[in-house]
Amino acid sequence: MKIYGDIRSGNCYKIKLLTALLDIPHDWVHMDIMAGATRTAEFLAMNPNGKIPLLELDDGRYLAESNAILNYLAAGSDLLPADDYARAQVLQWQFFEQYSHEPYVAVARFIAKYLGMPAARKAEFESKQLGGHKALAVMEQQLARTPYLVGQRLSIADISLYGYTHVAHEGGFDLSGYPAINVWLGRIASHPKYVGME
Amino acid sequence: MKIYGDIRSGNCYKIKLLTALLDIPHDWVHMDIMAGATRTAEFLAMNPNGKIPLLELDDGRYLAESNAILNYLAAGSDLLPADDYARAQVLQWQFFEQYSHEPYVAVARFIAKYLGMPAARKAEFESKQLGGHKALAVMEQQLARTPYLVGQRLSIADISLYGYTHVAHEGGFDLSGYPAINVWLGRIASHPKYVGME
Repeated sequence: MKIYGDIRSGNCYKIKLLTALLDIPHDWVHMDIMAGATRTAEFLAMNPNGKIPLLELDDGRYLAESNAILNYLAAGSDLLPADDYARAQVLQWQFFEQYSHEPYVAVARFIAKYLGMPAARKAEFESKQLGGHKALAVMEQQLARTPYLVGQRLSIADISLYGYTHVAHEGGFDLSGYPAINVWLGRIASHPKYVGME
Repeated sequence: MKIYGDIRSGNCYKIKLLTALLDIPHDWVHMDIMAGATRTAEFLAMNPNGKIPLLELDDGRYLAESNAILNYLAAGSDLLPADDYARAQVLQWQFFEQYSHEPYVAVARFIAKYLGMPAARKAEFESKQLGGHKALAVMEQQLARTPYLVGQRLSIADISLYGYTHVAHEGGFDLSGYPAINVWLGRIASHPKYVGME
């Protein structure tokens, strides 16, 4: 299979981390977001929404959306619980990530790190801080109770939230007030098959 | 089971529609978002993210996020495909909905219909139009090819996207340029067990 992605994107890195943890062979096709690689006619024919990561199966079928790809690739593995309710909780955290976390933490990071904090977007960057901290506080509350987001075991919910949380400082988020998140970050990074973002 | 929701919210209405299509008995607990019902200490103890809909199972466990709830309640039914790839495509559309559709279509509708288009948010309302139309164009492309978002059969992907698309005009979106979406809206509304938003 092929994975079209840019490793600097947390959404793409999630897939990289999952394939490392599960030893899934694949070709990584680098797409330079900053150079507009996802807006070409060729790429839009593969994913009309023009976003990465994108998975291409060996038979030519495509699958978009980082968290949909994680669910597909983790099916049948230890990273996706067999229990119906636990699997729904995994999805709960993944939808939380895309709606209540990524639009704040990832966008603030993008403005600061990749755009170099242009004056025209400084107000937007600052407006992202409150929502990002609200999301981090929700995570902290769960991780103070359980070692992973869904109970006692690592799942793709953790991979989804790890993607941008472990680089949240690049978006101006000080994580020192979140002790449980810090322990959890370390727990994931110490996995024997862990790979970093760069 | 109990469902905490406000039927004026497309995210809550999705659950109402699913329970109607699948004849799932439940108690609907009305939460008035505009009156701050989701920000009370009592509600935050049930869902730390302070959002509806929220599902409470008979044993007292909770599940948040509309699309996670749909997946949980539709498990084993005709509305959730058994095939792994098709189920991943359902998730693809649901994550698309939360990231690329809802933040534009639903937020524009909220500003126009529920806030009464205050001058202070007029620019934000207008800034939502482009992203909303991009999302609608992605849907149109798929629905011109297949009767439902994931192939030949109605699934919870359709329910997720129907939630706000069928009231997109309330957010200022003219749907007359999307013929396949209009046919699809009519197809869903003609389901014998269909219930409307109000």
